[in-house]
Amino acid sequence: MNAPLDAADGDLAQQLDRSHVFHSWSAQGTFAGLAIAGGSGTTVWDFDGRRYLDFASQLVNVNIGHQHPAVVAAIREQAEILTTIAPATVNLTRGEAAKRIVSRAPDGFNKVFFTNGGADANENAIRMARLHTGRDKVLSTYRSYHGNTGAAIVATGDWRRVPNEFARGHVHFFGPYLYRSEFWAETPEQESERALTHLRRVIESEGPASIAAIVLETVPGTAGILVPPPGYLAGVRALADQHGILVILDEVMAGFGRTGRWFAFDGYDIVPDLITFAKGVNSGYIPVGGVVIPDAIANDFDERVFPGGLTYSGHPLAMASIVAALDAMESEGIVTHAAEIGADVIEPALASLASAHPLVGDVRGEGVFWAIELVADRGTREPVSAATMGRIKAGLLERGVIPFIQDNRIHVVPPCVVTADEVGQAMAAYDEVLTTVERAGQ
Amino acid sequence: MNAPLDAADGDLAQQLDRSHVFHSWSAQGTFAGLAIAGGSGTTVWDFDGRRYLDFASQLVNVNIGHQHPAVVAAIREQAEILTTIAPATVNLTRGEAAKRIVSRAPDGFNKVFFTNGGADANENAIRMARLHTGRDKVLSTYRSYHGNTGAAIVATGDWRRVPNEFARGHVHFFGPYLYRSEFWAETPEQESERALTHLRRVIESEGPASIAAIVLETVPGTAGILVPPPGYLAGVRALADQHGILVILDEVMAGFGRTGRWFAFDGYDIVPDLITFAKGVNSGYIPVGGVVIPDAIANDFDERVFPGGLTYSGHPLAMASIVAALDAMESEGIVTHAAEIGADVIEPALASLASAHPLVGDVRGEGVFWAIELVADRGTREPVSAATMGRIKAGLLERGVIPFIQDNRIHVVPPCVVTADEVGQAMAAYDEVLTTVERAGQ
Ligand SMILES: Cc1ncc(COP(=O)(O)O)c(C=O)c1O
Ligand SMILES: Cc1ncc(COP(=O)(O)O)c(C=O)c1O
Repeated sequence: MNAPLDAADGDLAQQLDRSHVFHSWSAQGTFAGLAIAGGSGTTVWDFDGRRYLDFASQLVNVNIGHQHPAVVAAIREQAEILTTIAPATVNLTRGEAAKRIVSRAPDGFNKVFFTNGGADANENAIRMARLHTGRDKVLSTYRSYHGNTGAAIVATGDWRRVPNEFARGHVHFFGPYLYRSEFWAETPEQESERALTHLRRVIESEGPASIAAIVLETVPGTAGILVPPPGYLAGVRALADQHGILVILDEVMAGFGRTGRWFAFDGYDIVPDLITFAKGVNSGYIPVGGVVIPDAIANDFDERVFPGGLTYSGHPLAMASIVAALDAMESEGIVTHAAEIGADVIEPALASLASAHPLVGDVRGEGVFWAIELVADRGTREPVSAATMGRIKAGLLERGVIPFIQDNRIHVVPPCVVTADEVGQAMAAYDEVLTTVERAGQ
Repeated sequence: MNAPLDAADGDLAQQLDRSHVFHSWSAQGTFAGLAIAGGSGTTVWDFDGRRYLDFASQLVNVNIGHQHPAVVAAIREQAEILTTIAPATVNLTRGEAAKRIVSRAPDGFNKVFFTNGGADANENAIRMARLHTGRDKVLSTYRSYHGNTGAAIVATGDWRRVPNEFARGHVHFFGPYLYRSEFWAETPEQESERALTHLRRVIESEGPASIAAIVLETVPGTAGILVPPPGYLAGVRALADQHGILVILDEVMAGFGRTGRWFAFDGYDIVPDLITFAKGVNSGYIPVGGVVIPDAIANDFDERVFPGGLTYSGHPLAMASIVAALDAMESEGIVTHAAEIGADVIEPALASLASAHPLVGDVRGEGVFWAIELVADRGTREPVSAATMGRIKAGLLERGVIPFIQDNRIHVVPPCVVTADEVGQAMAAYDEVLTTVERAGQ
């Protein structure tokens, strides 16, 4: 498998894919994807040896960059020793991984429940919140993504179904998003205050004593990298406390370096009741996610059985990759680097892009977590068309940049290890493509 | 990490586990697990060098045995090349894995949707069935386990929530289980016929046109290895066809060698509409699962976006481990071996155990998928107490056998590669422990 690149392999990959692979969130008939042969750091390449800058970090998960040697080595070593073991065993690497995660969490968060990804991390956090509060309803925002699961435990027939007959009880509200305010706000302060008023009114109207948890992405990611305005998260915390509601912060995309901090919420005046994570914790080298649990909630299940679980909870290879990834991020200063490159390089570069291009309606973000919002008209803020976004995507790929395109936005989300030079190359590509599209009358 | 075994590591593993790891389906305060240092084939060992026969295959997933060299090598090689890539790319190893899976499925099953485990495989199969039929209700049996998820997509706020607002709509019925018949049946034929009558009555009473799917474990596993009686699955197929209901067979535990066949349903007169799998497909070396999809359903999503997905769908390391595991199972005749050792060695050994021990109420199974059901009284079939099962578990561990204990049953579920000699050792341990418990007046 270490054979040199071979274009024929790329053709075979395409052919097998079309014949046998069913793709996530896609129309299968029109699906078209790059066949990636390998990668290193911010770069990946195809079977023809064409190189691309990965400014999507795949699905915003490759925080440490592609093929980090220490993480690859840890997986290879663990594979030699013990690839798989049941969750009901004790495992040294699992303990080491959990220790490293809780050491970055607030005081009192001492335990980790490991899952396979972000969706089941949220499932289990919601389960804990419901069991802890004895309440059913879960509030979350319309502009959010928390994962694709929602039925298997209720399909389950044995006793494990009984405490889990949910997926009723979800209520949605609007979060702050000044550029497209739902609250007729004009300043960040106003947006924050009005969004809190709206949330308070939803809580009052639903009945505060029926609400188990508010689930929030600390910085909503797929929805547009909606950096919360001053005071918003502190206000959510206060509202929740007033009514005995738990706050679950979904740090699946925002956590482990993406914002230039270990947890995104470290930058805000809030301590959550439960934290969910996945992606950046090991950069997706092995599927994994989890819930970080404070003593106050973990202790509920000291005598009582926790009614949740999965075959691969605390999988040894996933654990080894977490240990190696977190140690490398620490020793190589990768999180600090993400903060610095965001403030010193990406932010000013995006500011120039915005001033040069009428198509750019808004830019926002921090660390290596940025969105460029494209509009047909700066006055009305009308989003550019899907066709235009398609041309932008194709133009960026032609110029060797893998972009993260979502609705009318380009998310600028490279690995945390991205260099100033690589940012410069990507910015040049964005600039050229926006110019071309603007010249063509958008 | 290739250091020799060190008892101090075992102590550290226990200490970190107690401090930082939150366990599946457990009361955390009384959790106690073995610290496993390594394994090979049917054997695992702890940090003191104590060896155990793994007659649980961990969670009935290590079908190929521990640390199969070809699968370990494939993971190590793939890790060097490309550890992680987004689902929206094309990947050669993913195509190769999907090809090997569909080649074992019935005609017309040409595509695979990959997930992280069994739960999300079922989530996605249920989603497909609902979207294909335009109906909501899902029928499944009380004696079943399909996974622990059930809320995250409904917590999701963006458009992906909209087609997924379920986890209502589940209905449960009783499946066949002659030893504890719900239908006052006395023969397998009667049990089958009456279970079908019951299912027909549930379908009629729920309203056939409201039912999207019947989800069944082909051979219910955790519920007691309930081998379906003659004609039952064919009868389910006929009832489903009569009403345009899909049949989803959950092959997560029963599939990929466990019954001595690639798919458990190959032994019955049924072709399902959707197949879910996990565990045995790569023996859990990397977290993975999936849905095998026939053209009739895959084509629904040629133009229409499939509203499901996950970050690690078709993860390269998982794919490499599937390719290597299936190729090794094929070339080493592992599935045939499971069938033969089941028929030639395990079945007769369990028959002697049953005749020697009044505690044994029933034995049933096939391949390397067997249950011993223990009763306080053969006449009333009253299950032995939890305390007795606890003593049995401790006695087996003392004798170097890791048992799979569930309710009043010992599941005899070693890796498919188990030898006659290893079966003999485990049987001797079962025999001794049952004798001790019987002597103590049970
Ligand atoms: C904030 C957030 N939560 C949860 C998830 C779901 O994670 P997974 O795809 O691993 O299930 C995602 C995935 O993009 C996410 O961005
Ligand atoms: C039949 C069956 N389906 C689904 C599952 C869930 O699989 P997972 O634990 O990988 O989510 C299991 C797990 O034991 C199972 O036995």
